[in-house]
Amino acid sequence: MDWPSIISDIEHAVEPVRGQGTVANYIPALAAVDPNKFGLAVVLGDGQTFCIGDSEETFSIQSISKVFTLSMALRVVGDALWQRVGKEPSGSPFNSIVQLEAERGIPRNPLINAGAIVVTDHLVEQIGSPQTVTDLLDRLRTLAEDDSINIDESVAKSESLAGERNRALASFMKSYGNLNCSVEDTLSAYFAHCSIAMSCHQLARAALFLAFDGCDPLSGQQMVSNEACRRINAVMMSCGHYDNSGDFTYRIGLPGKSGVGGGILVIAPGHGAATVWSPGLNSAGTSAVGSVALETLVKATGWSVFV
Amino acid sequence: MDWPSIISDIEHAVEPVRGQGTVANYIPALAAVDPNKFGLAVVLGDGQTFCIGDSEETFSIQSISKVFTLSMALRVVGDALWQRVGKEPSGSPFNSIVQLEAERGIPRNPLINAGAIVVTDHLVEQIGSPQTVTDLLDRLRTLAEDDSINIDESVAKSESLAGERNRALASFMKSYGNLNCSVEDTLSAYFAHCSIAMSCHQLARAALFLAFDGCDPLSGQQMVSNEACRRINAVMMSCGHYDNSGDFTYRIGLPGKSGVGGGILVIAPGHGAATVWSPGLNSAGTSAVGSVALETLVKATGWSVFV
Amino acid sequence: MDWPSIISDIEHAVEPVRGQGTVANYIPALAAVDPNKFGLAVVLGDGQTFCIGDSEETFSIQSISKVFTLSMALRVVGDALWQRVGKEPSGSPFNSIVQLEAERGIPRNPLINAGAIVVTDHLVEQIGSPQTVTDLLDRLRTLAEDDSINIDESVAKSESLAGERNRALASFMKSYGNLNCSVEDTLSAYFAHCSIAMSCHQLARAALFLAFDGCDPLSGQQMVSNEACRRINAVMMSCGHYDNSGDFTYRIGLPGKSGVGGGILVIAPGHGAATVWSPGLNSAGTSAVGSVALETLVKATGWSVFV
Amino acid sequence: MDWPSIISDIEHAVEPVRGQGTVANYIPALAAVDPNKFGLAVVLGDGQTFCIGDSEETFSIQSISKVFTLSMALRVVGDALWQRVGKEPSGSPFNSIVQLEAERGIPRNPLINAGAIVVTDHLVEQIGSPQTVTDLLDRLRTLAEDDSINIDESVAKSESLAGERNRALASFMKSYGNLNCSVEDTLSAYFAHCSIAMSCHQLARAALFLAFDGCDPLSGQQMVSNEACRRINAVMMSCGHYDNSGDFTYRIGLPGKSGVGGGILVIAPGHGAATVWSPGLNSAGTSAVGSVALETLVKATGWSVFV
Repeated sequence: MDWPSIISDIEHAVEPVRGQGTVANYIPALAAVDPNKFGLAVVLGDGQTFCIGDSEETFSIQSISKVFTLSMALRVVGDALWQRVGKEPSGSPFNSIVQLEAERGIPRNPLINAGAIVVTDHLVEQIGSPQTVTDLLDRLRTLAEDDSINIDESVAKSESLAGERNRALASFMKSYGNLNCSVEDTLSAYFAHCSIAMSCHQLARAALFLAFDGCDPLSGQQMVSNEACRRINAVMMSCGHYDNSGDFTYRIGLPGKSGVGGGILVIAPGHGAATVWSPGLNSAGTSAVGSVALETLVKATGWSVFV
Repeated sequence: MDWPSIISDIEHAVEPVRGQGTVANYIPALAAVDPNKFGLAVVLGDGQTFCIGDSEETFSIQSISKVFTLSMALRVVGDALWQRVGKEPSGSPFNSIVQLEAERGIPRNPLINAGAIVVTDHLVEQIGSPQTVTDLLDRLRTLAEDDSINIDESVAKSESLAGERNRALASFMKSYGNLNCSVEDTLSAYFAHCSIAMSCHQLARAALFLAFDGCDPLSGQQMVSNEACRRINAVMMSCGHYDNSGDFTYRIGLPGKSGVGGGILVIAPGHGAATVWSPGLNSAGTSAVGSVALETLVKATGWSVFV
Repeated sequence: MDWPSIISDIEHAVEPVRGQGTVANYIPALAAVDPNKFGLAVVLGDGQTFCIGDSEETFSIQSISKVFTLSMALRVVGDALWQRVGKEPSGSPFNSIVQLEAERGIPRNPLINAGAIVVTDHLVEQIGSPQTVTDLLDRLRTLAEDDSINIDESVAKSESLAGERNRALASFMKSYGNLNCSVEDTLSAYFAHCSIAMSCHQLARAALFLAFDGCDPLSGQQMVSNEACRRINAVMMSCGHYDNSGDFTYRIGLPGKSGVGGGILVIAPGHGAATVWSPGLNSAGTSAVGSVALETLVKATGWSVFV
Repeated sequence: MDWPSIISDIEHAVEPVRGQGTVANYIPALAAVDPNKFGLAVVLGDGQTFCIGDSEETFSIQSISKVFTLSMALRVVGDALWQRVGKEPSGSPFNSIVQLEAERGIPRNPLINAGAIVVTDHLVEQIGSPQTVTDLLDRLRTLAEDDSINIDESVAKSESLAGERNRALASFMKSYGNLNCSVEDTLSAYFAHCSIAMSCHQLARAALFLAFDGCDPLSGQQMVSNEACRRINAVMMSCGHYDNSGDFTYRIGLPGKSGVGGGILVIAPGHGAATVWSPGLNSAGTSAVGSVALETLVKATGWSVFV
């Protein structure tokens, strides 16, 4: 693999679209981010790492955290998790609370807000709200080999202040008996993990185990079972990008997860993990420039799972 | 790969569930099929073929035909197709009309009924209704190296008689300007291609090109472009099993397409194609026994795209 | 009641809004109508008649015909009608086909398109498609004492050509077993009765029986039973103006029915019937100027049923 | 009017259905009520009062309180109220959240839960949460000439404990900017007014002003303007019984409001007010026995507004 050439391809592809998309503005801390930021990091199974641009700068990982809470919950509660959350794409952002009503409080999948709140509720029920956050941070620091990873408290505070929609989702599920802890306990952990700040480099490194059947190839540590790993990837493929998941699968062909902070994590099974960051979002909430970069990466590497 | 052992595993897995599920009963010709039928065929890139049970018996391929009309349409109209149909999972049953109203006549993807009707309308507009069917049959006969492949006329007639729901979908899209031919012209081709009868063996052979970047490895013929091939696989992964697509991806981890006749086609990129048939359906319209067989096949071969 | 003063009030109220609203344009014959047309006719129980403006000019009565087919069907099939159609407001134009799916082919009420198609299907099943239209015309001519009332054939032809949405609704209900005749037989009668041309004066006269417990006070003829009459009025009150019914009840306070041709019929129980016509529609499909005129009429006469 | 005969008719009609329907069970205090309870009170404009059965026993008025908070809010904020809540029937169950998402936080009408929460939020914003409750109680005591009217504190506490669904609705509206006070402040007033306990006699007396254009005929006090009164009646007619409003209008033909405590209030403009109570509910949440009683009352008195 000619990495200097691949990196050059990506830089050329990104140049003309730099700054495109709309920066998330529902909380001030996100709205203030420079739309021209762009970073990309690729970590391979042998530890080789390739970085472009702002790949060491931390950003708000937002929904990408849902992949890590899902992997924690699968360890803690196992397949019992799937009694309280589905594995199907939601079909539509418009349907977010619609389907929750039609399906009596069972969210469609663990990567939309309602589903991730249920996943968090499982963890909070087992180990409490503060410990859930502490354990997640510990896990990320170990995986990324970087103790500086932390929550951006100003983001967490803003999330809570602007969090009426998530309170509505949590209260709604509680009314159907699908929330075991209090709305505020579960949401405080949820808001905290969405507010973790990480760099592209840290994220790609931390997620590497998902490309190698659950075992981090550098430390040798088995993070989740083989089976759980495949299934996390499957759920990312089906549901990782809101109402844009089919298009993402069509264009990129890798399991992945977007966050409204502009980050996208993708897993190339057997090869490695990559994270891209650029704050401008397309209409479905996925980084516009980031998608272009990943499309180029996949074309150049032939990493699509469909080949 | 120890194929005798794999086949034995599948036979053991299927034995206890044989006959499960509910046979489709909306037309008499489908309702009359013996629920205990079970066949499986695997065709590898080097032409090796492994068969179990009723793998040479023909059955109604139903929605599996949508994969082949999609590949024809991508050749005929190219990416213009995507202006009239999406790539997103529908989050709803196969014949739902709800999202068609919310999204003003643009179906969610080409593998649900409404989307396949639009795909067919493209072909009928270009080459006429009878020629669309003739070309599809020619293509399938060539790919499967079997000139006996044909339409089951009694099924086609029943489809048309019972086809009010599809007429509703077609009329509805026409009211939004998303059908260029007459409802009956487009539907006569649609009903015909859903009524094609093929065996597991024929189907797996015919779809082999999709496992090798669009090029049939045995004849050397490029059926669709590399890119189109990856994208057909991507759409199958996201949307191939109605409102069950996420669960199928989770359990099987391969691009595939179900039909209510009880057939399921799956593509193992770089390895081969497999088709299973057993008429009993689960609540989402996918073969119940067939899913178990495929789960075993994938576990034994390690063919999941997520490894 | 000082009628000259009431008429003068209405003329003053209408003057500043004359020409407002958007003329229906889905068929050419409706789009061509002069938006400045305005007519009003009031017919009292003693036969006194008050007319303003273009009250003798015929226009396309469109959905107002649904009130008369409903009254015919209640005579022919009685309460059995309510097994195939509901009495509830639909909640939303957006929901028109959504609820038809959720409620398995049973339309919400007989005054939305889907419901009126079921009502027509009942009549066509009993007496055939041409006779349904003939009987309706006979009835209207007798009631209005005017043999010139007829179908505008150019409108009927346009309705059929542009009728894919209604074909979708009919096919959809047929797929649920809620249409007994063929889609085209039922729709040909439906399109014909929507295309009847009548003047404000003719319509108000023809509907007078609905203000007097089902008995036309001038001819003495009982057109429907007392009970059926009250119920037709009740359904008009709940459901007569699409997704605008609540606002109409709030502002006007009388049972009524709008048509997209710009006509509105209202019934003042115990007093008389009134029809207004002005082609410009508000966003919910009700005549904008007509609503203003009726609001003034009701304020001046104190005819609101809520006093 | 032969009242002894009317009362006898009602007693006969109710006898065979006594105890039918399902008692609301979402809070213990409601579930414990004897399903055989039945009371009816009619208060006429001259003060004559007719009572049957348990007409002096208090019950939880629940959603009937929404009529009184609406009349308070129309006095306090006037037509500005309608910028934050609609006047259309919802076409959905009383606590549905679907349309609230489609219509961006604006509830369909003030008589469903979401709408009544907005009405309460207006009052709480103007005068605070405790004063809203105090003023409402004062008003009801004055109107009913009975100082014993009060909140059932055990019901109010249960409402709050079981109130996650209403918290979801309130949080959801707040996320769209349609709640000005805090969720808990607004809901504490909302839960309190739903928990008021009144008898049939007290309720019919208190609502008498709505039958006389806003002026209580016994005290001579104008409670709301003529226009507001007609409009409150109109909204009750369109939206007073959840997804059962059309059927209620069809059968009873009077403006009314149901509560899940089993009470129904109806207004007969120009005649009087009536309240019936029987705890068993039909599938739409309206008292089953109460509906039969009111249907008989209306038939015997000829009070339908459609005559």
